Amino acid sequence: MTAIAITGIGELTTNDSEVGDGSPLGLLREAAVVVEGGRISWVGAQAGVPPADRVIDLAGRAVVPGFVDSHAHLVFAGDRAAEFAARMAGTPYDGGGIGTTVAATRAADDVTLRALLADRVAEMRAQGTTTVEIKSGYGLTVAEEVRALSLASEVTSETTFLGAHVVPAGSTREEYVRLVAGEMLTAAAPFARWIDVFCEPASTHAFDGDEARTILLAGRDRGLGLRVHGNQLAPGPGVALAVELGAASVDHCTYLSTADIDALAGGNTVATLLPGVEFATRSPYPDARKLLDAGVRIALATDCNPGTCYSSSMPLMIALAVREMYLSPGEALYAATAGGAEALRRGDIGVLAVGKAADLTVLEAPSYLHLAYRPGVPIARTLELA
Amino acid sequence: MTAIAITGIGELTTNDSEVGDGSPLGLLREAAVVVEGGRISWVGAQAGVPPADRVIDLAGRAVVPGFVDSHAHLVFAGDRAAEFAARMAGTPYDGGGIGTTVAATRAADDVTLRALLADRVAEMRAQGTTTVEIKSGYGLTVAEEVRALSLASEVTSETTFLGAHVVPAGSTREEYVRLVAGEMLTAAAPFARWIDVFCEPASTHAFDGDEARTILLAGRDRGLGLRVHGNQLAPGPGVALAVELGAASVDHCTYLSTADIDALAGGNTVATLLPGVEFATRSPYPDARKLLDAGVRIALATDCNPGTCYSSSMPLMIALAVREMYLSPGEALYAATAGGAEALRRGDIGVLAVGKAADLTVLEAPSYLHLAYRPGVPIARTLELA
Repeated sequence: MTAIAITGIGELTTNDSEVGDGSPLGLLREAAVVVEGGRISWVGAQAGVPPADRVIDLAGRAVVPGFVDSHAHLVFAGDRAAEFAARMAGTPYDGGGIGTTVAATRAADDVTLRALLADRVAEMRAQGTTTVEIKSGYGLTVAEEVRALSLASEVTSETTFLGAHVVPAGSTREEYVRLVAGEMLTAAAPFARWIDVFCEPASTHAFDGDEARTILLAGRDRGLGLRVHGNQLAPGPGVALAVELGAASVDHCTYLSTADIDALAGGNTVATLLPGVEFATRSPYPDARKLLDAGVRIALATDCNPGTCYSSSMPLMIALAVREMYLSPGEALYAATAGGAEALRRGDIGVLAVGKAADLTVLEAPSYLHLAYRPGVPIARTLELA
Repeated sequence: MTAIAITGIGELTTNDSEVGDGSPLGLLREAAVVVEGGRISWVGAQAGVPPADRVIDLAGRAVVPGFVDSHAHLVFAGDRAAEFAARMAGTPYDGGGIGTTVAATRAADDVTLRALLADRVAEMRAQGTTTVEIKSGYGLTVAEEVRALSLASEVTSETTFLGAHVVPAGSTREEYVRLVAGEMLTAAAPFARWIDVFCEPASTHAFDGDEARTILLAGRDRGLGLRVHGNQLAPGPGVALAVELGAASVDHCTYLSTADIDALAGGNTVATLLPGVEFATRSPYPDARKLLDAGVRIALATDCNPGTCYSSSMPLMIALAVREMYLSPGEALYAATAGGAEALRRGDIGVLAVGKAADLTVLEAPSYLHLAYRPGVPIARTLELA
C-alpha cells in the first residue's frame, strides 16, 4: 500500500485531545501526517515522520479535519434569487417558497439533476468539505423522492429522506402524512440512512409534533436513523420530540425554551446550528453559548439550499458562529468538524488520528484562526490525495 | 490590434443607465462585449456581436464590472489573528493594535513585503477585484512610509499616503503631525496619488480635526487628492472636514449625525462604507439607507487590513451590505463598482461601456443577485484576457 506523507504542516488541528496542546482541538505545531489506503496511519511531529512513498510538503500551511456538513439540500433545480432579494427588501419567510423549487426539480431530467448535484458537491469539496449529508424533500411524490435519494446516494452515504419537507399542493395534510409514513417511506428507505421531518407549530407550512412523531416512528421502524428540523420559525415541538425519540440531531434550534435546552443537555441529540439561515433570512441567531454552557453538543452546518441559505461555505458558517453566536474560533471549528461527525454518529471522520479517514483540509493560512479572521476569503481547500 | 469577443454572457451589468433595462445597473441579457487593447470597443446583444480575432464563450454566466476596492491596507507583515480572537471574546477595539503591525512591517525586508503584497493583490484579483487602492501607514517613519508607497506603486496607480494612521511610540502628537505634514509628506508625495488621515475625536489613538486639517491641507498643497478615515470609532469631525475640504471620499461613516448626512448630501464627497470592519469588530453598521435616501453617493470597500478586517472579499462586502445595511443587491453591486470608481474619481473604470477599461468579472452564476444570495461562496473571478 502506498504511504503518502503530508509534511510541513505549520499547525495541525487533530480534534484529538489526547495529543498536542491538550485542548479539545489537539493542536500540533510543525507536524506531519501519513496516509495509507485512505486512512491515517501516523500523526506526529514533523521531526519524527516515518519514510513514505510520496511526500506532499505544505510549506507551513495549517491543516484541519475536513469539514463535515451534516445538513444540506443539494438535489434541486432552479434558484430563488428573486425570492431572496424580495425577502431582503422585507417579505417575511414562512417556508412557502419550497413549492417553487419542487416544481423546478420535478421538471428537471436525471442528467440535469445529476450534473447540478455534482457541481454542488465539487463546490463544497473545493472549499474544504469532505463529508456532506444530502436530503431529499423537493420531490414530494413517491417517484420523485426515490429519484432524489437515488441521485444523492451516488455521491454520499449520508442520505436523508425528507418527504416531510412541506405538504405539496393538492394533498391534504392527513393524506400526505399517511403517504410519507407509508408507501413513500417504503420506497425511499433502501436509498436512505436517515429520516427527517420539518417540524414546527401547526400554524406553519411544516409538520406539527404529532405528524412528525408519526413519520419519525415509521422511519425508525424501517431502520432509519432520526433527524429533525426543529424550532426554526418559532418555539415549537421539534427539539423536545427529537430528544425524546433519541434523534441523532435536531437542526436549526433558533427559538429555544429553557425546557428545550434542559432536554438537549440531558439527552443524546446533537443541536445542529445553521447560522447561514439566520444570515440569509435576517432572523435572530440561536443562543449557542447557552447551549454550550449547558453541556449540549453542537454542530455547525450550512443548510445549503435554494431558499433560506444558498451558501455551501463552511468557513462562512464558522465566521458567523464567531461573530454572531459568540463561539470562539476553536469552538466553531470543532462544531464544523467533530460536531458534524457526532451529528451523523460517525466515529471515522471529524478527527485526525490513526485509523480515521484521511479527510484533510488545507488552509492558505498559518492557523485555523484565519477561518474566522478572514471571512469570505476562500482559504480552505480539500487536500486531494488521489 | 487583436479583438477579443466575450460572448454567451447570460446577464451583463454595465452600470450604464443608457443601455439595457434603464436601471442604474444597465442590465443586458444574452449579451457580448468586445475588447481591443485593454479597452471595451463594443457592448451589445449577443446576436449583433461583430467578428473578432478570438472568442471567449461564457456559456450563460453573468458578468459585472470588476470590483473597485477603494480602501485597503495591503503593505504589511505579520497578522493579528490572536488580537481578533481576543476581540471576539470581548476586548474592545480602539486602534491601538496598529503598533503591532508597524513593528512587524518595519522588521520585514523588501523581498518579503513585496511577496506578501503580490499575494494579496492576486488573492483580490482571483475574487473579482480589478482595481485596488493601497495605503501606507504601517511604516510611520519617513523611510518606511516611502518604502511602503514605493512597493504599492509597483502594483497600483491608486496609492495613498497614510502617515497619519496613528502616532508612533516615541513621538509626541505635535512632533509627529509636523513630521507627517512636512518632511514625510515631501518624501512620500512622489509615490502617492492621495493623502489620507485617520481622523477621530481627540480621546482616541487617531488624529483630531485640527491635526487632520493641517495634514490634509499640506497634502493638497503638494498636489495630492484627499481621503479621510472618519467617524469609525465614534461621532467625530472626520466627515464634516472631508466635505469641507472637498475630499474624494470619507471612509467608515459608522457614526453619523444628521449634520454629517446633510453635509455629505450637499457636498462632492463619496461616503465609503466598510461593512467588513463592522463585521470583524462587532460594531453597529452604518445607516446606508439614510445616506442613499438623502442622495449621498456611496461606495463599498473591504478595508482589507490585519487588524479590523482581514477580508479581501468584495462579494462578502456586498452580502453584508444587503443583510446588514439594507441595500438591495443592485445598490450594493453598484457601490462596489461604480461607487468605488467615483470614490477614486476615476471615469475609466466601474462602467462597462465603449472606451472604458476592459475590467470584467465573471460570476459562476446566472445573475449578479447571486453575489448576495450565495454568501461566502467564491463565485466571482476576474476575467483574464492576457
